[in-house]
Parts: sequence; structure tokens; C-alpha cells
Amino acid sequence: MSLKELGEFGLIERIDGLFKAPLGVMGIGDDCSVMPQSSGLDTLVSTDMLIEGSHFLLSDVKPKDLGWKSAAVNFSDVAGMGGSLQGSWLSLGLPKDLEAEWMLSFMEGYKEISDLFHCPLLGGDTTTSLGPLCINVGVMGVCEHGKAKLRSDARVGDLVCVTGMLGDAAAGLHVILSGMERGSQEDYLVSRHYRPMPQIQKGLCLAKSDGVHAMMDISDGVASDLRHILKASGVGASIDTSRIPMSEALRDLALKSGKDPLRWSLSGGEDYELLFTADPAALKDLEVEHYVIGEILEGSDVKWSGSDNDYLGFRHF
Amino acid sequence: MSLKELGEFGLIERIDGLFKAPLGVMGIGDDCSVMPQSSGLDTLVSTDMLIEGSHFLLSDVKPKDLGWKSAAVNFSDVAGMGGSLQGSWLSLGLPKDLEAEWMLSFMEGYKEISDLFHCPLLGGDTTTSLGPLCINVGVMGVCEHGKAKLRSDARVGDLVCVTGMLGDAAAGLHVILSGMERGSQEDYLVSRHYRPMPQIQKGLCLAKSDGVHAMMDISDGVASDLRHILKASGVGASIDTSRIPMSEALRDLALKSGKDPLRWSLSGGEDYELLFTADPAALKDLEVEHYVIGEILEGSDVKWSGSDNDYLGFRHF
Repeated sequence: MSLKELGEFGLIERIDGLFKAPLGVMGIGDDCSVMPQSSGLDTLVSTDMLIEGSHFLLSDVKPKDLGWKSAAVNFSDVAGMGGSLQGSWLSLGLPKDLEAEWMLSFMEGYKEISDLFHCPLLGGDTTTSLGPLCINVGVMGVCEHGKAKLRSDARVGDLVCVTGMLGDAAAGLHVILSGMERGSQEDYLVSRHYRPMPQIQKGLCLAKSDGVHAMMDISDGVASDLRHILKASGVGASIDTSRIPMSEALRDLALKSGKDPLRWSLSGGEDYELLFTADPAALKDLEVEHYVIGEILEGSDVKWSGSDNDYLGFRHF
Repeated sequence: MSLKELGEFGLIERIDGLFKAPLGVMGIGDDCSVMPQSSGLDTLVSTDMLIEGSHFLLSDVKPKDLGWKSAAVNFSDVAGMGGSLQGSWLSLGLPKDLEAEWMLSFMEGYKEISDLFHCPLLGGDTTTSLGPLCINVGVMGVCEHGKAKLRSDARVGDLVCVTGMLGDAAAGLHVILSGMERGSQEDYLVSRHYRPMPQIQKGLCLAKSDGVHAMMDISDGVASDLRHILKASGVGASIDTSRIPMSEALRDLALKSGKDPLRWSLSGGEDYELLFTADPAALKDLEVEHYVIGEILEGSDVKWSGSDNDYLGFRHF
């Protein structure tokens, strides 16, 4: 059997079946592992790999932006649990012909976001790659014991919410790949693709509310990521696509280029906003920007509704 | 400037200069980062990347052995600090044509060593690589606060010791690459290459002794690794190559194949024994197998001596 047939999630399930986390520790299956410490805090750990050709093209991306983004996508996993950041580790598999200046510029971007979030680089590994540039970031965070927001805690009757505009990063990728002329709106969308902002503050704020149940960061697109919450929680959901928050820049670009804005916002991914479910009564007290896009139901499926019946076809996410 | 001109250690120095670890935290520069917890324990973190073509050939290595070794080289970093293991994280960049069976067999080897050392896999990332198989392991360990053995603590007058036979892994690699016929000795050497054993127990034992000063694991070869201790501690050393412990299997193979056994044992690397310096008075109480190979001196160089003057030429390590 090829790995493609088994699939990424099939492989993860097989690996998950091999390992038992110690009592009290949460291992494979969420944005971060959660490890209780005797100090009364829980340590959060996440790791992500980015490979040239699969995740980025050296010809497209500025090294400083890639350094930023490599850290950002990991920081976002800690945001998805409602934790704060402690430190990161960076492994680099470096092609021999890579310029030292490129690499040092990458590190500047990595440092910029590390400084912004007070999350220092604490170690790593550098090695030679005979193939593509290969980047792995590990990140450690912390939260109060038992307070990490999990994917598995969505409850029937919860509202499904997101913390910001969706689809901008995907629309930005369209701007990049199409080579179109850029005005200020296009520049904005491109910056959302290259410089995603991990929503650590929003995550911390949401983690304080007991009425917020399941949470995760939106990395693959809300349509795909929501399925993780539904599966882990054993529930279904209805989503009203007309309530998906989309920026004016995205809407304008979609109109101009004849593209489907919902495809970007539902399945584009890389927005790194937060997706959460919450008791309706808790929403009014949340001091975090949020948009209700649907409701948690019994079952296991997503019922898509919206202004346009075409979007009912999003079944393959 | 190319990365080759800057060099791995040049790059690490530049990166190190960019980041300041928070007060009390030890970041870049040792086998592991050391992060004090409010519980009175120190968390140890290390990460290592292995890339097909640079670190292994898929045609040579059995997946189960590679799974073992990927974890072992990381576990060894925790051993090098004198810590115990808590958990690991595995990132995989998978070529599309890799067989699922290969991958699951890799995971079996990873699980075998994880079980042996009670160090569960707690998370990770799987992604697609358009190039080589890319593996990154992160590991977390723990030790008593302030008790991690650092590279920077070697003192003039210390004896330089290693915890076991050196060069077997390199001799094993010679057996593999030469395609020679294998008897039981060759099989033993090959197993030392494919299935290195992280010396967690020896590390824990050595960490208990205040007379043991600097320590690290031997991954690149003692000649190269010793330099890290000397540089970090601001000292020099004299090494008597006639005291380097070498297995009979290695000596026999060297004789048989006309190779230099000291080249394997001093610079071959991948033995994952421990290298440490200790107060001479403390040695008699150590309940760990160890071999004295030299002494810490003032200065910054290594003075090589031994039965054969040829070995005085090992200056480029």
C-alpha cells in the first residue's frame, strides 16, 4: 500500500494506536501535547515541518518572511490551546548552494516574530540537505493545569465561532501565483499569506472563559479544521456560509478575478485565526472579536447552508 | 558568502548572537536547552534532523533500524546532560512513493526504543516531501534543578573519560559500505551502527556525582566533540590515544582490512557513549564503566600523544 492510499490521517491513526501517553498526559491528536507539571502548570508542545517545494518555493518567498512564517505556524498551535509561549527550537536541513546571506535574513524574520511574542529560540540543529531546504520548528508553551482548550470538548448547542476574517491568506497566494498587478488591497492580502499572525492574545482571552469549549487554530481551512473538532468531540454541526467573515480586500479580488471567495475562506487555509465552540450564554462576555458561523448539532456531519446553494457541495472537505 | 564558507558552527554562532535566552534558561550551545520549572526541576529539550542522502540511504538501512536510530540520537542528547526522558515528538517529511509498510516498520523501531526507555511519542507532524525523506525528532527530559551536566564545566586538572568502546559504529559503517562478508564480529559492529544505545543510565549515574564536571554525548567522534567541551570551558587537554578503548571486533576488522582503528574511534562518531571530565578524586566512587583517556590542561588546544607518532597529526579535528 502506498502512503497516499493510507493518507496522512490514516498514518497518524496508525501511529497513535502504537503509543499510549502516560496517565494525565495528552499525546497525539490536538494542536499541542499537554503535559502536567508538578508546578501546577501544563506544558504545551507542538512541532511543524516545512519543506521547500511542498510548502514554499525559494523563488517566491523572501527569506525574512519565511523565517517569520516558520515560527508563526508553530506559535499558532499554542494559541489554539489558549496557552502562552515559552520558547522554540529550530532544525534546518540546508542545501549546499544556499547563500549564507539568505539564511541570516531568514533568521532575522524568525527573530522578529520571536521578539514580538517574547518567545526566544532556545536550541536546534543544523545539517546538510542534498535535496530541498527543510525546516522544522518545535515550540513550547504553558497554561494553567487543565485549562488547555481541546478539540474534543465541543458540545451540542454550542455556537461555532471564528476570531477573524478568513481566506485572506489564500487570496494572497492567488495574487502571488497569478503575478497580477498589486494595489494596496493586493499587498494586504499578500502580507496575510507571508506574515500570518498567531492569535496568542485572543487564545489567552478565550481560555479564561469556561463557556468556551473546543478550540483550535485554523491552518488547513475552517471546513477541514472543523472536521477535527467534530470527530474528536463526536458531534456534528451546521454552518451558514453567509456568516463567514471575509475582508473587503478578498471580496474585491474575487469579484475582479472571477473567483469564488468562499473557496478561499472555507478551504484556503493558513489564516491562523482561531476556531472555537462556546455556550451561547458565554459569548456576550467574551472580550475577543468573534463571528458566529454555525452551531454544534448531534451527529457527525456538517450541514452547509448559505445564500448560494452551490456551497452545499462542499462535502469532500 | 556560501553557507559552506560560513560553516555549520559559524552559522550557529551567528544565530546564537541574535537570541538571548531568558534569565536562568540555557539556550543554544549544549546537548539540550535547560529550562528551570517552578517545580524545582529543570526541563531538558533537544532536537535533531536526519535527511535521506545526508544521514542515511534508504537502500542501505532497514526502516525499523532507522526508526530506532532516529529516536536514539535524540535520547542520547538527554543522556549527555545526565537527565531522564519524558517524551518525544516526531516530524516526518514523506516522499510520495514511500510505501506505507516501510513507514509502519519505521514506527515499530521507533516504538521499540521508546518503550525500552519509557519515553512515549507525544506528538509530531506528517507532511509531504517532494525530495528526500526528512525526519526530525524532538525530545524532552528532566533533571534536578541545576544538576544538568554542561559542556562548559571542565576544569584544569580534571581527567577526561569516556564510558565505553569508541569506533564500533564507524567500523560498522565500513562493513556496510564495503559489502564485505560478515561474521559475528562484523554483525556486532553493524548493529552498533544501526542500533546505537543512548546511555541514559550511565548519564543519570554520572549526574549524581558532584566530581563529574563537563559532560556530553559522543555523536561526531571524541576528537571533534572534545573540542566543544574545551571551547565552552576555556581549557585545553592532552589525550593519550593508546588509552582510547576499542573493541576486539574493531581491532580485528582494522587488522583484516588494513584500516586505521584510531581513525574510527577518534573521528568516526555515532557511538553515543558519554564523554566527561571529572575530578581525579571522584573517579574511584563512580559506579559507571569508564576509561580515562587524558587530562584537562590550561590553554585551548589538544595535545595528542600515543604509541604511534602518526596520530599527532590529528590537528584538523
